[in-house]
Amino acid sequence: MKRALLAQLGEAGLLRLLTGRWPRKGRSVTVGVGDDCAVLRLGKRSLLFKTDVVVENVHFGPRTPARLIGRKALARALSDIAAMGGIPLAAVITLGLPPNESPRRLAGIYRGIETIARKHGVELVGGETTRAAQLFLNVALLGECRDGPPVLRSGARAGDLIFVTGQLGATQARQHLVFEPRLAEGRWLARHRVASAMMDLSDGLGADLPRLGEASHLGHEIDAHKLPRRRGASVEAAINDGEDYELLFTVPANRAAWLKKKWPFATALHCIGTMRKGPASALAHGFDHFKQR
Amino acid sequence: MKRALLAQLGEAGLLRLLTGRWPRKGRSVTVGVGDDCAVLRLGKRSLLFKTDVVVENVHFGPRTPARLIGRKALARALSDIAAMGGIPLAAVITLGLPPNESPRRLAGIYRGIETIARKHGVELVGGETTRAAQLFLNVALLGECRDGPPVLRSGARAGDLIFVTGQLGATQARQHLVFEPRLAEGRWLARHRVASAMMDLSDGLGADLPRLGEASHLGHEIDAHKLPRRRGASVEAAINDGEDYELLFTVPANRAAWLKKKWPFATALHCIGTMRKGPASALAHGFDHFKQR
Repeated sequence: MKRALLAQLGEAGLLRLLTGRWPRKGRSVTVGVGDDCAVLRLGKRSLLFKTDVVVENVHFGPRTPARLIGRKALARALSDIAAMGGIPLAAVITLGLPPNESPRRLAGIYRGIETIARKHGVELVGGETTRAAQLFLNVALLGECRDGPPVLRSGARAGDLIFVTGQLGATQARQHLVFEPRLAEGRWLARHRVASAMMDLSDGLGADLPRLGEASHLGHEIDAHKLPRRRGASVEAAINDGEDYELLFTVPANRAAWLKKKWPFATALHCIGTMRKGPASALAHGFDHFKQR
Repeated sequence: MKRALLAQLGEAGLLRLLTGRWPRKGRSVTVGVGDDCAVLRLGKRSLLFKTDVVVENVHFGPRTPARLIGRKALARALSDIAAMGGIPLAAVITLGLPPNESPRRLAGIYRGIETIARKHGVELVGGETTRAAQLFLNVALLGECRDGPPVLRSGARAGDLIFVTGQLGATQARQHLVFEPRLAEGRWLARHRVASAMMDLSDGLGADLPRLGEASHLGHEIDAHKLPRRRGASVEAAINDGEDYELLFTVPANRAAWLKKKWPFATALHCIGTMRKGPASALAHGFDHFKQR
């Protein structure tokens, strides 16, 4: 292998380099690398397995309120469980910390973890600490699909309509700290077998929708006027801002009316386009912004 | 809470501060924080759940061969599965990396992970990367106890004999990189219900045996002459050097002869002492070195 710079590879290229040989399916693995969570079949159960890490000066800053750091660390992983239609079960936390870190701040971070864990019924079952140059928190989360099979990124068909929950575009700095993981919504969609494919929006619609398309071997068409924008967010922001943590999912056209009628949540629901035959790499039509990514 | 320095708290004090309120048992949790792995009961199955992290300049250095970094990252977590008598199932890897890290080195690290994963039948099912100031690898590992109930730290009784596998004392710099997780041995001990309590030696006998004693509410008596020492290791080294990754376990006295007769492994097996009634905090008699820790 030639020496290459990480910057040239990008995260996707790096993951391909490192995990390209890992199984998509295996002995007990229904879904390996490449979806929101890994899915493990144990007897009749479908377990979800996910880790998510937050690092100081990358995912939060020195002035971020401690409780919100902890909240975010767990909420990100919860959002991935939501995106499979699962329920969260138990988490193990790894803490990396500089020797001069304040125990008061650490205690605040752990309170933040505990509060959102309690809210969503997650049992905190283990932890480890290590010295590190920079504060980081890794959350390993186990979940389960009890309401139906896991909803994968790969299940969309041509003609399926594309929906998102909530609003897009980060117009306030705290959005990435206070988002609500869409667990109830994801679980409901799985129970009613209404979503053909699903993922959560962590890197922005412009980056994430092509991933769903790639997994489903489809292109897509988005109607810019239908994008639900957070107050003050431009269309660009709605497409390109990351960390929305909303659900992006596809629905067979003949189920869309039922979905809109029966949707029981206060969370907004918007149809923003259609999955189309075409190259998986095709980006949404009409947005040059997509190409810049 | 008063401001305290991490150095004063120590890792044990910090974990008490951060996770002291977390459940030891819960809805589906048989064993929470405080043992080698968390144990989750799902139907009739006992799942094991563990994370372990290695950080550059803490657990390995810039000159450590890349494959051995990856090997160590997974082997440490495997050793914890071994210590419960479990088998490993699937792992998810989180990689934190500085932007100038060499992809060649990263690929080597992942080869190291893959090699030991294949050897022990671990499926690599997911990964995430993040920017960080310092290279780190977090391994989240799922396992299962199929051969009997998980062997906990808390099951020792007064009069049980204390055994260790292998030799103690790190007399070569690479020992912590090339150790063999005692998976077959741990599983055999669980299947034959011969170990009343078990853990792996990661911080050295002098630090770890008191933890087993604390969990079992017992003290202990060690015979210094019986400590199996790696060639060139002093008694001090056998007690205080960390990262042996051998199994430490207790056996009812009336099973000890059977154990010694039936032990089917090339791995050495040594009886080093006896669990005694007494304060859990009591350190091994006769070793002042213990008190220095």
